[in-house]
Amino acid sequence: MSKSIEVKAADNVRILAAAMVEKANSGHPGGAMGGADFVNILYSEFLNYDPSDMTWANRDRFFLDPGHMSPMLYGILSLAGFYSMEDVANFRQWGSVTPGHPEVDVERGVENTSGPLGQGHVMAVGAAIAERFLVARFGEWMAHKTYTFISDGGIQEEISQGAGRIAGHLGLSNLIMFYDSNDIQLSTETDEVTTEDTEMKYKAWGWNVVTIAGNDADAIRKALKNAQEETEKPTLIIGKTIMGKGAITEDGANFERQCSTHGQPLSGAGASFAKTIANLGGDPENPFVIFDDVKEYYEKRKAALIEAAAAKKAEQAKWEAANPELAAKLKAFFSNEIPEIDYSKIEQKAGIATRGASATVLSVFAKEVENMIVSSADLSNSDKTDGFLKNTSSFKKGDFRGQFLQAGVCELTMAVIMNGMALHGGVIPACGTFFVFSDYQKPAARLAALQELPVKYIWTHDAFRVGEDGPTHQPVEQEAQIRLLEKLQNHSHKNSMLVLRPADGNETTVAWKMAMENTDTPTALILSRQGIKDVTTYETAQGATKGAYILQDCEGTPDVILLASGSEVSTLVDGAELLAKDGVKSRIVSVPSEGLFRTQSAEYQKEVLPAGVTKFGLTAGLPVTLEGLVGMDGKVFGLGSFGFSAPAGVLDVKLGYTGENVYNQVKELLA
Amino acid sequence: MSKSIEVKAADNVRILAAAMVEKANSGHPGGAMGGADFVNILYSEFLNYDPSDMTWANRDRFFLDPGHMSPMLYGILSLAGFYSMEDVANFRQWGSVTPGHPEVDVERGVENTSGPLGQGHVMAVGAAIAERFLVARFGEWMAHKTYTFISDGGIQEEISQGAGRIAGHLGLSNLIMFYDSNDIQLSTETDEVTTEDTEMKYKAWGWNVVTIAGNDADAIRKALKNAQEETEKPTLIIGKTIMGKGAITEDGANFERQCSTHGQPLSGAGASFAKTIANLGGDPENPFVIFDDVKEYYEKRKAALIEAAAAKKAEQAKWEAANPELAAKLKAFFSNEIPEIDYSKIEQKAGIATRGASATVLSVFAKEVENMIVSSADLSNSDKTDGFLKNTSSFKKGDFRGQFLQAGVCELTMAVIMNGMALHGGVIPACGTFFVFSDYQKPAARLAALQELPVKYIWTHDAFRVGEDGPTHQPVEQEAQIRLLEKLQNHSHKNSMLVLRPADGNETTVAWKMAMENTDTPTALILSRQGIKDVTTYETAQGATKGAYILQDCEGTPDVILLASGSEVSTLVDGAELLAKDGVKSRIVSVPSEGLFRTQSAEYQKEVLPAGVTKFGLTAGLPVTLEGLVGMDGKVFGLGSFGFSAPAGVLDVKLGYTGENVYNQVKELLA
Repeated sequence: MSKSIEVKAADNVRILAAAMVEKANSGHPGGAMGGADFVNILYSEFLNYDPSDMTWANRDRFFLDPGHMSPMLYGILSLAGFYSMEDVANFRQWGSVTPGHPEVDVERGVENTSGPLGQGHVMAVGAAIAERFLVARFGEWMAHKTYTFISDGGIQEEISQGAGRIAGHLGLSNLIMFYDSNDIQLSTETDEVTTEDTEMKYKAWGWNVVTIAGNDADAIRKALKNAQEETEKPTLIIGKTIMGKGAITEDGANFERQCSTHGQPLSGAGASFAKTIANLGGDPENPFVIFDDVKEYYEKRKAALIEAAAAKKAEQAKWEAANPELAAKLKAFFSNEIPEIDYSKIEQKAGIATRGASATVLSVFAKEVENMIVSSADLSNSDKTDGFLKNTSSFKKGDFRGQFLQAGVCELTMAVIMNGMALHGGVIPACGTFFVFSDYQKPAARLAALQELPVKYIWTHDAFRVGEDGPTHQPVEQEAQIRLLEKLQNHSHKNSMLVLRPADGNETTVAWKMAMENTDTPTALILSRQGIKDVTTYETAQGATKGAYILQDCEGTPDVILLASGSEVSTLVDGAELLAKDGVKSRIVSVPSEGLFRTQSAEYQKEVLPAGVTKFGLTAGLPVTLEGLVGMDGKVFGLGSFGFSAPAGVLDVKLGYTGENVYNQVKELLA
Repeated sequence: MSKSIEVKAADNVRILAAAMVEKANSGHPGGAMGGADFVNILYSEFLNYDPSDMTWANRDRFFLDPGHMSPMLYGILSLAGFYSMEDVANFRQWGSVTPGHPEVDVERGVENTSGPLGQGHVMAVGAAIAERFLVARFGEWMAHKTYTFISDGGIQEEISQGAGRIAGHLGLSNLIMFYDSNDIQLSTETDEVTTEDTEMKYKAWGWNVVTIAGNDADAIRKALKNAQEETEKPTLIIGKTIMGKGAITEDGANFERQCSTHGQPLSGAGASFAKTIANLGGDPENPFVIFDDVKEYYEKRKAALIEAAAAKKAEQAKWEAANPELAAKLKAFFSNEIPEIDYSKIEQKAGIATRGASATVLSVFAKEVENMIVSSADLSNSDKTDGFLKNTSSFKKGDFRGQFLQAGVCELTMAVIMNGMALHGGVIPACGTFFVFSDYQKPAARLAALQELPVKYIWTHDAFRVGEDGPTHQPVEQEAQIRLLEKLQNHSHKNSMLVLRPADGNETTVAWKMAMENTDTPTALILSRQGIKDVTTYETAQGATKGAYILQDCEGTPDVILLASGSEVSTLVDGAELLAKDGVKSRIVSVPSEGLFRTQSAEYQKEVLPAGVTKFGLTAGLPVTLEGLVGMDGKVFGLGSFGFSAPAGVLDVKLGYTGENVYNQVKELLA
């Protein structure tokens, strides 16, 4: 009996996957071999995209969650024509386009970076929301599906709770998730760690769920068809698959469903690589081959895809002609263009908290930035994203006309959804929570940084001045922590994140301008809970664009340079006044971003912070937050311990964040 | 009609809660008022403990998840006699024993620090596992229940997925969770963000679930009784409660179920504080009062509890007499005593990876430390916690004779479970995963640090030498990040975490010894994937106990001091050899913990790292990881960007982690 083309193609993916891992002597063949049938049906019959125009905005998206299954992805994408046999043979090698875990590469069909389990499918949720958002504005003609592929690990990851709830709640019927359920994970069989009824769980979240034989082409086809017809709910297809499908031993005995094939080459796992390749119809001596009939099959698919995309684009052209204004807007949305906003016209109330100043700016964005989506993890009235919300509405099932996602309490999920929106394109995502909970979001922020996604983080309640909520809610180490991403470069040789902690209302306006103009990396805004005395005008606050600048200076060489970020700058101003009365000449430098300052010319850096002049840094974070700038020239007064529950004003005094203490500290330093 | 005592007591809690927030002008009254009936029934009829001996090991535990509901906890604990009216009137004030979010204080009945939603109930899961572990060794006579209280936010937090799955999978019938379901959260009504069927979801996880009227004393009583009788499954009691129960306006109109009462004083929310207090039977002028009959009621309960505990203790005394060896062991378990282990006898293979060296030590612990529990998030064969597992077995439903928790893929849940185990006492928890995933665990590590819990983190695959897995799996900023907790002091004025990155196999043995002996704070071990050339003996590696030490020295004053931690130390040794051939005299300092080194005498610090001598630091992390020690005296060679997918040996060369490059860098520095 000759094999059907769908089995042959899937076997081809299995051969390539096994061979990649075997040659690299590193990687995960078993899962890839089990999932091959699904991706083959998906790519050969369902996934719509334009092979001649991979960045086409209206393409279906495919988000891989288990990045260790990269051999499956590279395998199917080589059948589809995006990787050469040389590329896949160089799997996991220096400089190759086939890294161990996929790194976003849209031109080759890789929609997202994956690896940390769970995040991939949540990015898909974000993309599906972005699609609904755009369709609500431009019409169903541009609707597309978002597919995602998840494994046992992703199903177990905590974040699946956030994604399951939100996708169900919003009725994202455009989202179709395949769960590669092979009952085996890295360390154990799955039943050693879970006995949940996954079907029931997703039904509890409001999903359409079907369980199928995951290596059966017909079953996959039928499930995908049904999923495409679903209009109310996201679909979960639980595919019971066979880990290491096709693997045999030297003796020809079946070696499927073996935990050992999860994370090592077949030969290391106990199977025979050569026999397995032969068993799958390949040539063990030369496994990096696409079978002729498979090639032909995929070439036909390619032609059909290009034709279908052309038809869609013709439809789009008609729509554009009939709707020139909308068409221009759609183009602008996908171009990274930001509407011209006259930030100088944004008036900030005197003495406003920087979270409040952020709300002022957000209220303008809500009216002028039509493709901005803001989200909050159940803190919109505290993190002041409600400044945006008041001028728009929240997403609801079937209604994506608003621009706000009430995410519920799920800081990490929210941040990963932002990444998915940014990957989808066409929208500008921003999300808010308390700064201390940036801890929860770090895994997502790291992937935003690595993927170079311009997500905006609105982190409020920036220091011990959270006050009564106490140490669990008071950030101390967080500013130093997140600024590590300013020190870490991305693969484009830029600081992987821009982190801004503005000193007052006007600096906040400027910080938001910088955040919007930064389309290359994520940006963080670290904002105060409490009101802050104004220390800048909109004009003087422009210095923030250099990362650090002289906010207030003295005649001649200063006796001391005082530096800080955020609300500590105003405390320095108080201190400087007391020092001046005492004849001490000081300069005040506001440092909203050390990372950005470090990218300025050496000359500018020296001008602002000349070596040899005594420096005093004030931070509500750990002293290390400013020690890099103060160096050996002085000292940093910071907080060295967890905070305490008490009113903010009391803490200022108890912990030494007053002009008087600045005066005392500096006098001691200069003595 | 006169009120029943249970309503009166619950109203008393409501009055105290509302008054605390009103007086502090800060906090969350609404939820506390809704949950009061449940905690009143729990404390007055079910929760077993010894009011005369609050640290009694066999007490029932109560873990609060929503820390913002602290007024409810302080309220009920004041009825139970652990807080004075002055204490509760000082709610959220400097130096008070009633901080905004509860901070662990067992003597007063506060079992855990809470605030970051979700973590509280997961700590309860950890405590319930610890209880089963102890019961499996000493008998059902010491069984107790673990109760926990969760809110809408905790149910939504991602981490509930890990807790729900694990508690169900392990059949923790000793765990009873009350879900205060009041349909309101901080920013919105709950149905704006979720439509999940929570009952169905927990049933999918294998829980026993019942839904009741959550303010009905009889319903609560019945549900708790049924839960206590359950022997197969954890129980979830979904209590439909009324947010702000009893709140009225100035006009006497009902003001219950208002979102506004979630996060502000009643008067700020739109209710009348005075009318509400009066409505609940209190005196608005003097609300900090325990009603006489309520006092009497709780005094009776107290006497009964003491009597019951005495009976239990008598039973224990009999058991102890009959089982002197077991009794001694039980005592040792709860005393923080560690068995004497002759670490000098632990032989490490030459050139072993430090994760492998950790496995060697763990295999000894599995035999000698009978109350150690090790866990892994599905990486036991990679993080080498399997060195422990090989000598024990994993927990299974109904079988807690082993000492290993296969947590599945849920890094954060696992880490929080460790905190719960440590809070329970009697066990020594340790958990392993990849170092890059410490990002996921930071929120738990921070609470371990704040609560001063001696949890051990086994973080392997410590740097870019993860190799082929690529940037998603290669830590760069993580070492600097986690060491921030070495710079942050806890409320006992100690470094809030001990972070050790040993240089080779012997240093790993010493590091594990230090970790076991550190019963004051959490300890992290950062371990290599790859083999490392030995640079110490067990004797010389003792220097690690000082945080940093001279590993290799020269005659006279060195031309350069080379410093590093982890596997970079051996690279320095290679470099020093090349330098020596060139006549350059060098000293090598191994720095497994900068934080610990900083606690040594100034004299010792100066002896090891004298000022004025040129220093060269080598780190596979960001340069900032060592910049604090190198200062202005030299330079740090570190990794400034995300890593790359390629074999580790290739990366060493490409990125400059070779003896040759050390030689070149130092020559340039000295030139």
